[in-house]
Amino acid sequence: MTAEPSSRHPVRTYSEARFRGDVATAAAQIGEGFVFRSPFITSDSPTGHLDGLDGLLGIVTEVEPVSALYGEAEATLVYNLHTVPALGITQRTAEHFRLRDGLITEITLVFDSAPWQAVMAAAGPPGDGAAGPA
Amino acid sequence: MTAEPSSRHPVRTYSEARFRGDVATAAAQIGEGFVFRSPFITSDSPTGHLDGLDGLLGIVTEVEPVSALYGEAEATLVYNLHTVPALGITQRTAEHFRLRDGLITEITLVFDSAPWQAVMAAAGPPGDGAAGPA
Repeated sequence: MTAEPSSRHPVRTYSEARFRGDVATAAAQIGEGFVFRSPFITSDSPTGHLDGLDGLLGIVTEVEPVSALYGEAEATLVYNLHTVPALGITQRTAEHFRLRDGLITEITLVFDSAPWQAVMAAAGPPGDGAAGPA
Repeated sequence: MTAEPSSRHPVRTYSEARFRGDVATAAAQIGEGFVFRSPFITSDSPTGHLDGLDGLLGIVTEVEPVSALYGEAEATLVYNLHTVPALGITQRTAEHFRLRDGLITEITLVFDSAPWQAVMAAAGPPGDGAAGPA
């Protein structure tokens, strides 16, 4: 186990940039043909999935790392997102990345959306001006 | 990258046994102080989280592997669980394992429970005899 997996640098750079709200640096790690999937979003734009980032960061109090495993053309991060006391959600999250030529071409974000469905239901139907997580 | 990560054999053995319903072989990979967490279950019994296994396997039509990354004392599997057409749920799933002395001491299963909440709501409240996923 001597070689540094080539996925490590772009994935760490992307993830750290995203959680400090640095969309430009995160987007610079995204390659052609990119696809993002989560319980709420499917997007093939390089930054479409980052559109609600400020809102998310406004309610996240801590990103608690659980695991980071890197392969040659993929990686999986596991972490717990802690949110403000008013929400009280601790979101166990897994994020799988695929890469090509050192750039991220696929992100699949896995988490339980049920707590958010409850929050969004309480916030009211979309389109009535209520602010909610993107 | 020459060494075989020591997590690979027990995690593969556990996972393959579970998806063929072989609880004894799966349980043999579980070590002392085991903890299991998922959106529906928290259990510290070696097999408590496998109690509903037959019911689950009855509705799963395919386990589609997405990723398997192994470290020395941990591993993360990502896969899609396809279910019978009557349910029509494709469950993106991430499963993080921690190990000690070659045995699994922690499993965190991450998936979106929202589609199941809808199925269970339709099945009726618990205790009225309706069968649902465990």
